[in-house]
Amino acid sequence: MVRMLLTLATGHGLGILLTLFIMMAAAKVMAEVFERLRQPAVVGEILAGVIIGQSVLRWVAPSEITNTLAEIGVIFLLFTVGLETKPSVIFKVGTRAAVVAVLGVIAPFVAGYFLMRLWGAGNVESLFIGTALVATSVGITARVLASMNLLEVQTSRIILGAAVIDDILGLLILALVSSAAAGQMNYLVIGTTAALAIAFAAFVLFIGAPVVTRIAPRIENLRTSESFFVFGLLLCLGLSVAAAYIGVAAIIGAFLAGMALAEATEKNQTMHKQMGGVTEFLVPFFLVNIGMQLRLDVFRLRSTIMLTILITLLAVATKLIGCGVGALSLGWRRAAQVGMGMVPRGEVGIVVAQIGLSLAVIDDALFGVVLFMAVATTLIAPPFLKLLFAGKGR
Amino acid sequence: MVRMLLTLATGHGLGILLTLFIMMAAAKVMAEVFERLRQPAVVGEILAGVIIGQSVLRWVAPSEITNTLAEIGVIFLLFTVGLETKPSVIFKVGTRAAVVAVLGVIAPFVAGYFLMRLWGAGNVESLFIGTALVATSVGITARVLASMNLLEVQTSRIILGAAVIDDILGLLILALVSSAAAGQMNYLVIGTTAALAIAFAAFVLFIGAPVVTRIAPRIENLRTSESFFVFGLLLCLGLSVAAAYIGVAAIIGAFLAGMALAEATEKNQTMHKQMGGVTEFLVPFFLVNIGMQLRLDVFRLRSTIMLTILITLLAVATKLIGCGVGALSLGWRRAAQVGMGMVPRGEVGIVVAQIGLSLAVIDDALFGVVLFMAVATTLIAPPFLKLLFAGKGR
Repeated sequence: MVRMLLTLATGHGLGILLTLFIMMAAAKVMAEVFERLRQPAVVGEILAGVIIGQSVLRWVAPSEITNTLAEIGVIFLLFTVGLETKPSVIFKVGTRAAVVAVLGVIAPFVAGYFLMRLWGAGNVESLFIGTALVATSVGITARVLASMNLLEVQTSRIILGAAVIDDILGLLILALVSSAAAGQMNYLVIGTTAALAIAFAAFVLFIGAPVVTRIAPRIENLRTSESFFVFGLLLCLGLSVAAAYIGVAAIIGAFLAGMALAEATEKNQTMHKQMGGVTEFLVPFFLVNIGMQLRLDVFRLRSTIMLTILITLLAVATKLIGCGVGALSLGWRRAAQVGMGMVPRGEVGIVVAQIGLSLAVIDDALFGVVLFMAVATTLIAPPFLKLLFAGKGR
Repeated sequence: MVRMLLTLATGHGLGILLTLFIMMAAAKVMAEVFERLRQPAVVGEILAGVIIGQSVLRWVAPSEITNTLAEIGVIFLLFTVGLETKPSVIFKVGTRAAVVAVLGVIAPFVAGYFLMRLWGAGNVESLFIGTALVATSVGITARVLASMNLLEVQTSRIILGAAVIDDILGLLILALVSSAAAGQMNYLVIGTTAALAIAFAAFVLFIGAPVVTRIAPRIENLRTSESFFVFGLLLCLGLSVAAAYIGVAAIIGAFLAGMALAEATEKNQTMHKQMGGVTEFLVPFFLVNIGMQLRLDVFRLRSTIMLTILITLLAVATKLIGCGVGALSLGWRRAAQVGMGMVPRGEVGIVVAQIGLSLAVIDDALFGVVLFMAVATTLIAPPFLKLLFAGKGR
């Protein structure tokens, strides 16, 4: 009686709010624990999802609402990453970062694809795993380098520039691979999608970004309160829809929207704080939702454990070698710094796995493998980075 | 084919993102138009919902997702209102504001109830309409007074203090009336709910707020990034759930959470900007969703139009007289300033109507009547306020 009554009194019921509260609280408690253990908060928030989800406590199950909040969350996450990616900086870091990025994309993609084929997986499945191995997580490495006051060092700049380029390449490959997954390898469709995706990216970066930078003062003069922030929100949602409409993942549109605004918002502290509020509120739902989708029992099979170890080793080795070779002209130590800096996979790899899962291209076990790889590389890299940069490495 | 493909490629489909984009874009275009006409942006955003909703263009229909986003939006809206409501200020403005508030609550509630009874409405229905007439919208009046640089004037302080007290009274009455609606006037349940609601509010304000203010520095020292902002989000969600759990509307918990944090965050610009980002993103969904629920065809009946006019006149008259009498010792002109300052109904009145609609206590026609009243009082008051404060009125 009382329960029914209060469900009525709230209009929609306790359920959703309680779910959101549990997800947010679990995420932030685990983030605090991981920060105290000097580990990335991101990993803590994913683990929070594993704990409250289907594998352990079963407090919260994924629903249409949590999936939607997670999707909005990842869109704003990529938008924020884009906001910190000025196109001009990428144009500047020059060819060395591009070489590092390209070699660091080809090596894991090719190695991942063939490992999966050898393992007996199908073509599309193998393409997805290769794609999930591609993208370095800019955030993790940047946070480690920033905490050591190393962001201005030459190797750091190469790492960050290359990470951005490899993010873009990773998202482009994702666009191709997911259209391959849906279209049963229809080369016309894939070709069209690729052309559209590249044209879209080029249009946003070469025409959209300068236009936005030029009209920014006029937008700020609009009467609506916080007009520039609102413009950013609309550009992010609008380009996400546009990206999805031409057949590319929505997050690519969000990322490009961020890049288009990067120049104009560089010194706009208010905009960064407002955007920070939105992502701080929404991103935990994305991370916790990832953890909630992990089924721990997939690791009962010895073969899954074997594959997990292989994929994780491959993920570390291919970036270390691929990117290291690209930076070898700087000497062995710096090449190792660059290679290790590119090891952490994060958001993008997980996003790829999640899209694969939702397309039913990869199964729960492979999702678990990729998730483990993303988390493990994220945990492995920071201590080695600190070692490689310690002492005369600076 | 292409559409299906791209729906797959985005993971969840274009639908939700496109809906969010249309809602946000419509809200902000109309807000800009209304700001340029020197009318409240809030009204523009509600009207945007009317235009894109079932009555006019039919572009977007309310769904579980839009309703949930709207609910989260109104929770953060009330949280933000609470953040700007320092308990100490209310304790200070003294008895005059309290008298203005109480008379300004009793007059519209009683008059609204009896008008509806005379009109032939049921008991609970009449109680809801009375409740919807109670709460002044602090936001609108404050914005008008701020634009005239009058916030420090004595009458302004009385208006703002009284508006806050009347918000709290309005929310308490809502708690009682909605339990009456659900419990078929079970006096034991109503009594228990009232006692719980008052105890809850007293606990948050007299014990929670000082504790939060004291431990605020320790929270800011936590390792999690933006820990104080995250704490605010959790307190808002947590008290919303707690309020719903004891049978009070979730928004009351959110409002109290804001008040508990008001003292601690007074000078925390970062927190205000981050919170501003979240509300700026979410509140449009609440306002547009309101408009989307309005069925314009209810105004085809002459009786509905009659009732709308009567209720709107009553809404203006009862605040003008009720609050004016409470401030009469200040002289006629200032009493009129106070009375007119309390006329705009806004968010809270609309929330009451919406809860009534979702409880099926009031129908589409009465929802339309209340919405019209809230919008009309909001549009009527500002020009009169400017007249009353003009010249020697300062």
